[in-house]
Amino acid sequence: MNTQAQTSLPTIAVAMGDPSGISPELTARILAEADLRSAADYVVFGDLRLFQMGADDAGLTPDLLVIGEGDAIPAGAGKPVFVDLKNHDPADLQRGKATLAGGKAATDNFRRALRLAAAGQADAVFFTPFNKAAMRFAYPGYDDEIRFVRDAIDFEGAASEFNVLEGLWNCRVTSHIPLSEVAKNITGERILRALTLSDMNLRAAGFNPPRIAVAGINPHAGDGGNFGREEIDVIEPAVKLAKEKGFTVEGPFPSDTVFLRAKNGDFDAVLTMYHDQGQIAMKLMGFDRGVTLIGGFPFPICTPAHGTAYEIAGKGIANLGATRAALALAIKMAGEKKAA
Amino acid sequence: MNTQAQTSLPTIAVAMGDPSGISPELTARILAEADLRSAADYVVFGDLRLFQMGADDAGLTPDLLVIGEGDAIPAGAGKPVFVDLKNHDPADLQRGKATLAGGKAATDNFRRALRLAAAGQADAVFFTPFNKAAMRFAYPGYDDEIRFVRDAIDFEGAASEFNVLEGLWNCRVTSHIPLSEVAKNITGERILRALTLSDMNLRAAGFNPPRIAVAGINPHAGDGGNFGREEIDVIEPAVKLAKEKGFTVEGPFPSDTVFLRAKNGDFDAVLTMYHDQGQIAMKLMGFDRGVTLIGGFPFPICTPAHGTAYEIAGKGIANLGATRAALALAIKMAGEKKAA
Repeated sequence: MNTQAQTSLPTIAVAMGDPSGISPELTARILAEADLRSAADYVVFGDLRLFQMGADDAGLTPDLLVIGEGDAIPAGAGKPVFVDLKNHDPADLQRGKATLAGGKAATDNFRRALRLAAAGQADAVFFTPFNKAAMRFAYPGYDDEIRFVRDAIDFEGAASEFNVLEGLWNCRVTSHIPLSEVAKNITGERILRALTLSDMNLRAAGFNPPRIAVAGINPHAGDGGNFGREEIDVIEPAVKLAKEKGFTVEGPFPSDTVFLRAKNGDFDAVLTMYHDQGQIAMKLMGFDRGVTLIGGFPFPICTPAHGTAYEIAGKGIANLGATRAALALAIKMAGEKKAA
Repeated sequence: MNTQAQTSLPTIAVAMGDPSGISPELTARILAEADLRSAADYVVFGDLRLFQMGADDAGLTPDLLVIGEGDAIPAGAGKPVFVDLKNHDPADLQRGKATLAGGKAATDNFRRALRLAAAGQADAVFFTPFNKAAMRFAYPGYDDEIRFVRDAIDFEGAASEFNVLEGLWNCRVTSHIPLSEVAKNITGERILRALTLSDMNLRAAGFNPPRIAVAGINPHAGDGGNFGREEIDVIEPAVKLAKEKGFTVEGPFPSDTVFLRAKNGDFDAVLTMYHDQGQIAMKLMGFDRGVTLIGGFPFPICTPAHGTAYEIAGKGIANLGATRAALALAIKMAGEKKAA
């Protein structure tokens, strides 16, 4: 049953993350937030016993409609629908430790949330933090979330991770590859593809038009060719072409000052050429308080940027800031999508 | 005449920087600071007319002993000695613009300050900001300060730029080379050389022992070899060897979090593998308020990290913070050197 047809609210598919950290507590906390509850419909995938544990950690009792794995998802429930997958025996729980059981539950929850959205029954996916080691125990091919999503919903198009911190976005042309292979992977085509994806996702989040800065790759953006020619030969022509295509884009800029300008409000997003070029800046600016958006799939996928916080699992002190920002972005983008 | 023999204070050779920006004002301001005046003896190289202009900009009249180009430098003058080189006709001054005249004066001042220190008549060199374009007009081989210093004092040993911000140091293994050439230039030998130079300079500034963090080169420091093998094959063995040699060193760490740890006080310095890896972090943390140290030469060379600020030349509003920090570091290192 398609919930979209029966309500004006967007539907968010929620996957409970790694149970050994703060994910159960965060899931319970976020589903108790009154403004978020009224802003969307929710279908939550997880094990009810672990959710209950998280609710106990948080000292909360969020009101849910619990259904079983095979049950039809009811529309207009007026409260979050929790699909109890009974996929993690609480006796197997080891707090503070990456386990196969935890990875199995998290990958199961994530896959079901993705497939709900792929089937058109949810407008966005949101998940609480995963542990990469646990995900790999359960799914050895787990390079990163993008690869997992591709496999889960059989999608071949362009996709990318975006890092979002208080309205400042970062996207990158290359990601999890050795630094030695970055330069040869920077092509005009890839820059255009990343710019297009950035523009599309920023627009989907309400930026109109988004102002995008493009970083150079070499020290001082090549210093006029003295320290490398990629800016002159590849990046400048790509930016020129992108301008002709109507993108609001500038660059290439030296990567050691472009984030200062973006932080000062000159740009909405910085397109970086490689992983650490953006991550060094975003993490220093406090990106652990930020949001990771996986964009390019037919629906947005959002999660807090921080990790599972094993060291405070079960203490009831998890900070909801980034989780709230991530869910709010999912709701915003899902709403823009429905309105489009 | 060697001033070192006749006073317990260190002697700082001061080169006036590019006259088209705030360098004249900064030189006048810094020589008027009572605590700095009493902490060192000074020999200043410049054109007295430009210095006077800077003093007027600052609304100050620092008391100097002015001598001519060929005059012996007197010891125990009790005030800064200004060597009036008459090397820039004020009629040629174009504020806010890189000029050949400005570059000629700045390179002349810098060369004389360096040679005074190389001759043992000063313990450290300090300069107010240069403009790279103007330096290149006057000296086409001007790649960066290190190359210039090598040429000026005919020195072949290892040298490196250090970026210093409020007690946090950054040094790099490679610098002004294309990103595509970084990986092949990271060798165990080069890492050891940079570590040795870092340790030496940090000790010369009073850190005992300095705690140095080494950054990886790949995303997530290679993620156990998944995103590149340089950490396993090159950097880890170099860090191990450095530990055996007695350095207080740790790493390799992912470069997107190592500065957060250093900022929190876990380390005194971060050794980065390439230019932007450190510069992105340092500039975001406010490195424009910091100090550039050129270390490895027989004497320390310090300058504020910011530029010539052409846009506020002559306005009398130049901020002295970084200049003060740079001169203080020069005095500190010169003092440690004299005491050794």
